[in-house]
Amino acid sequence: VSSLEALETPCLLLDRARLEANCRRMREAVRCHGVTLRPHLKTAKSLDVAKAAFGGSDARGVTVSTLDEAAYFVERGLGDQIYAVGIVPDKLARVAELQRSGATVAVITDDVDAARRIAPIAWVLGARFDVFVEIDSGQHRGGLAPDDPRLIELATILDVSDGVRLRGVLTHGGHSYQCRSIDAVAAVAEQERSSAVEAAERIRAAGIACPEVSVGSTPTALHARSLDGVTEVRAGVYVFFDLFQHAIGSCERDDLALSVLASVVSRREDAMWIDAGTLALSSERSLDAVGGSGFGEVTAADGTPLPGAPKVVGLNQEHGEVVATDGALDTAPFPIGSRVRVWPNHACITAAMFDRYHVVEETDVAGEWPRLRG
Amino acid sequence: VSSLEALETPCLLLDRARLEANCRRMREAVRCHGVTLRPHLKTAKSLDVAKAAFGGSDARGVTVSTLDEAAYFVERGLGDQIYAVGIVPDKLARVAELQRSGATVAVITDDVDAARRIAPIAWVLGARFDVFVEIDSGQHRGGLAPDDPRLIELATILDVSDGVRLRGVLTHGGHSYQCRSIDAVAAVAEQERSSAVEAAERIRAAGIACPEVSVGSTPTALHARSLDGVTEVRAGVYVFFDLFQHAIGSCERDDLALSVLASVVSRREDAMWIDAGTLALSSERSLDAVGGSGFGEVTAADGTPLPGAPKVVGLNQEHGEVVATDGALDTAPFPIGSRVRVWPNHACITAAMFDRYHVVEETDVAGEWPRLRG
Repeated sequence: VSSLEALETPCLLLDRARLEANCRRMREAVRCHGVTLRPHLKTAKSLDVAKAAFGGSDARGVTVSTLDEAAYFVERGLGDQIYAVGIVPDKLARVAELQRSGATVAVITDDVDAARRIAPIAWVLGARFDVFVEIDSGQHRGGLAPDDPRLIELATILDVSDGVRLRGVLTHGGHSYQCRSIDAVAAVAEQERSSAVEAAERIRAAGIACPEVSVGSTPTALHARSLDGVTEVRAGVYVFFDLFQHAIGSCERDDLALSVLASVVSRREDAMWIDAGTLALSSERSLDAVGGSGFGEVTAADGTPLPGAPKVVGLNQEHGEVVATDGALDTAPFPIGSRVRVWPNHACITAAMFDRYHVVEETDVAGEWPRLRG
Repeated sequence: VSSLEALETPCLLLDRARLEANCRRMREAVRCHGVTLRPHLKTAKSLDVAKAAFGGSDARGVTVSTLDEAAYFVERGLGDQIYAVGIVPDKLARVAELQRSGATVAVITDDVDAARRIAPIAWVLGARFDVFVEIDSGQHRGGLAPDDPRLIELATILDVSDGVRLRGVLTHGGHSYQCRSIDAVAAVAEQERSSAVEAAERIRAAGIACPEVSVGSTPTALHARSLDGVTEVRAGVYVFFDLFQHAIGSCERDDLALSVLASVVSRREDAMWIDAGTLALSSERSLDAVGGSGFGEVTAADGTPLPGAPKVVGLNQEHGEVVATDGALDTAPFPIGSRVRVWPNHACITAAMFDRYHVVEETDVAGEWPRLRG
């Protein structure tokens, strides 16, 4: 155990107590509905955080968004995976390689032509691929609408293909990020649920087995009023939360588990520059969409608020400009080398700027957890 | 030598011929003024790119913006460095460690109190530190104005301190990024030069040696009309250039050496999603400031323009949404798995999302160059 003062800045801090509380809260929320939680590890990219996400539960299934993540977690014993980005047939060779150790890396598709190419690739590689049909429940990113005429064609192709197993349907209610009230989130959660269940029912009505119905996003997972017909929930950012999730009502401000420790490198009378720039914080402007602004809130190194409620308003690669949002910032208490903590807009992207977490208990540094970049 | 088709997407492509031409152009531009080029390696974070930057010249001095970069290049034989972010006294222990092999990692400061702390730290560590005074030539990030009353006090502290060597003054005309014409850039270049030279002359008039005058940014380095009194120029992004540099007149569109190869993962009639999202492209919106928008231009994989001039208009962590800027995008020619190339807004930040460059000659892949993350 050492102190925050011993860390080289900028670096990534993870509050263990908050992480564990956030993970517990999500497990409870999903368990109440009687469905399984399959954490999305794109946020954390860390085995230690995955363990916290599981807590004492028996679940071990995970979600990933890159094949590097898939490889990282297969190597570390988490071999029940969904790779939840539309599969490019060229990538199936690497999926097959990852499965050679006994893992299952299920893939998703919304495309009839791509689906037709999976079976021949399975045959050539001597592999078997588990596949979900991606459903669009309103985000309009990937996926077929539940009433899309191609749905049954796609399910049939997957059902009849050798070396391919249709696991079910999958959707992501990512448009919950546009909601500004809990009721609105609950409405998106119901849309997410009913779209996925409707698609599954249509497939079943065509005489095709569709055992799994996978849905999820952090806001909808927390605020869904019913998950009838759903078999599992995927969510990721809840392990850390961030200013955006706080702004849309997913958490309290004191639930934020992830922050960046930074040092003052230059100051004027009413502004200062810290050594956390774009490559520490990322230039995510998600707060703009919820009436906020800037690239992160600034507190004292121990997490207590500072007079003037300072925030990062400008970024260069290795510099962040800090001013007050409430009056003028008094920089007198911040000689060069003073340390502050920045609370990020979007935890997934800020975390991705670093290769390790410094695990914090109160203001002690209890250890270091490696994380994957990629 | 293999083909682009063999690469796993998303990945970072570096056009070797363009890189070499860009490096040659900057060497010529600086050589004409009779000053030394000290490339800023924060853009490339790669020994191979550093070698291209030097070309056949004898110069070996470099600029870095993190101590991880400093360590990376010291280990690889580039031991004449300026660490060009205001020094935090706590970081001097690591600087001293890096210098133990005979390297010099010069630091910069604009702060009297920080400057006073350098000598005692040098004494305790048995180290010597080379220091530049940071001058504000108009960017208003770090630095003292050349007529700031504290300038002579700061220079005197550095001059009289044991274990400290005042190397000179340093400024970065980063406000050249706000220029919208070559004449405006040339005016900032003159402001950058004259501010640094004025500061150096004031220090010399106080009887203090001030041998070096270091200035630079890519636009000002290319368009300065005089560098009288300057001893070296620092610049970084010129090795790759990007859409922003093109927009402000630093380069031609065909000079861009860096791009991201991506695959189509989902498509609708008039839009498609690729596997290059925030973690491949970064969410830099620098184009917004020059009348553009979006997160990158999309061309065919071989770099040729596509009908409708598509660009990336939306980003999630691993998804980029592509639409046409000119009419509706016809996605018929883009089945799932089709490959495209994305040309980034800000090359420094996009490059930082990857751990290697795939070096491209025409459409052949000639090799892989590792790069540092951090």
